[in-house]
Amino acid sequence: MGKGISVITAKRAGFCFGVKRAVDMAFAAAEANRNVYTLGPIIHNPQVIGRLKEKGVRPITSINNRSIKTLLIRTHGIPRDISEQLASKRYAVIDTTCPFVKKAQQYAKLLRERGYQVVIIGDAGHPEVQGLMSYAGADALVLSRDMVMQGSAAWPALKPKVGVVVQTTQPVAVLKTFVHDAVDLVKELKVFNTICNSTALRLKETQDMAKKVDVMIVVGGRNSANTTQLAAFCRSMSVPTHHIETADEIRSAWFEGVTSVGITAGASTPDWIIAGAGQRVREIAKSRRGGEHEHATERRNQRT
Amino acid sequence: MGKGISVITAKRAGFCFGVKRAVDMAFAAAEANRNVYTLGPIIHNPQVIGRLKEKGVRPITSINNRSIKTLLIRTHGIPRDISEQLASKRYAVIDTTCPFVKKAQQYAKLLRERGYQVVIIGDAGHPEVQGLMSYAGADALVLSRDMVMQGSAAWPALKPKVGVVVQTTQPVAVLKTFVHDAVDLVKELKVFNTICNSTALRLKETQDMAKKVDVMIVVGGRNSANTTQLAAFCRSMSVPTHHIETADEIRSAWFEGVTSVGITAGASTPDWIIAGAGQRVREIAKSRRGGEHEHATERRNQRT
Repeated sequence: MGKGISVITAKRAGFCFGVKRAVDMAFAAAEANRNVYTLGPIIHNPQVIGRLKEKGVRPITSINNRSIKTLLIRTHGIPRDISEQLASKRYAVIDTTCPFVKKAQQYAKLLRERGYQVVIIGDAGHPEVQGLMSYAGADALVLSRDMVMQGSAAWPALKPKVGVVVQTTQPVAVLKTFVHDAVDLVKELKVFNTICNSTALRLKETQDMAKKVDVMIVVGGRNSANTTQLAAFCRSMSVPTHHIETADEIRSAWFEGVTSVGITAGASTPDWIIAGAGQRVREIAKSRRGGEHEHATERRNQRT
Repeated sequence: MGKGISVITAKRAGFCFGVKRAVDMAFAAAEANRNVYTLGPIIHNPQVIGRLKEKGVRPITSINNRSIKTLLIRTHGIPRDISEQLASKRYAVIDTTCPFVKKAQQYAKLLRERGYQVVIIGDAGHPEVQGLMSYAGADALVLSRDMVMQGSAAWPALKPKVGVVVQTTQPVAVLKTFVHDAVDLVKELKVFNTICNSTALRLKETQDMAKKVDVMIVVGGRNSANTTQLAAFCRSMSVPTHHIETADEIRSAWFEGVTSVGITAGASTPDWIIAGAGQRVREIAKSRRGGEHEHATERRNQRT
């Protein structure tokens, strides 16, 4: 063979500011306290959740669990009523809600108070959006990416004063399409562009990378919306794309005839997993350079 | 020949609410007062201005003219400083500013007071926009249709909080393009969609008409921005289009081989001019049905 594979890893792959902050807070809480819980997974990465469990930090679903001594609020934030109930609890509460998500919640509340119909652009099933909804009032509307892209005919009627907040990890193209289509349906449109800059930059870098390489590896939790979105964007650019959680999912067969591989990762993917994925691809590349024999062996192994 | 020409006139051609109100106020002022002036042309239609002159209502450029007993403020509004100077004048001031323009001025003022950088979408040379600018603060930006359509690279840098008002007669497509391109350049975008509904509906009706007919006649002042815009839209749809001020500009040669003619008019075009244009086209059509001889005669006359 003798043909090398170049492996490039996105500079912006992995932990964003909000995730890093939350994970640091969680490990610090594990050091300092006992019976530490998180209300739902603190971030959408099973491997990080696994490491936290080893330190005694466990996700639970109820705030009424009697063993709680310290409760961590996840990066995605929580609905208003839960927040209010927590105020009367005797246990310690550590809020790791991403400051950008917190800001989006405050904007939703402000818009509601000022008489706007709040439109949330995002995934109604995502905990961040559920948090935003709790601040947005009874006439609020959640529009998913698909609904926005279908055009305004697919939306419920908008009121004359509309205020917009966006799930922080949405692609900006969705917001652009929404404001374009909505602005002549209303008298007043107030948009808080709450899309996190790191999301936009990561997506941009990933798209640029996907144009240049033969294969994309997208690393991160399968439950991570922003990781899944990165993979979807790569696929939409017709580059073969594999969404993996950990390096051991990487298959040698993915690199047949391939000379360049791009690696990117979502905001909740830790560095050690990204590094592991890069390492694994380089090993496969090396074994391939080693000759036809090793290559064939590896392929055989892989099929078993 | 024997071939008829069908002539259709747009339902929404002619005076909008604001123009009708202003012209009625001007004629009423002419009845009730002497030495009535308008600060600039009260509307952008030379024929209406001509009729008002016959009644003694004349446009002037200075508010300090000593012969003024009554001054009419034009539909397009006036800048703030002129408005303040008028407060100390001894003569009567009648404000015919279109209520929708007035509202746009108030929105510009409000946005400025609330700390937004005001972006005015419109033609910087138009008196309505000059009025808006006077309320919009020192860091305000006027973006013309052409500038918006060139894309954000052609614009000066936007501040993080941007508030938008629009010249009431702009096409909504310009606003849509602006919000689409601007929303990811800012943190907050507040848009007052001040485009007058009658402008949007008139443009829509004209576009629908232009798809169906062989020739479009657009009637209105050459200095009327919204009339010029109607003509430009028809031309962009590749239908032969003639912008005329009065019926006597209509040429028989425009209707060679034509079976359908659409007539539309700007917001400042009076009914009697629109009716005159329709009459003239129907006469041409009739003379053509009258036979080859008449038809030829007419064509000969026209060349002289």
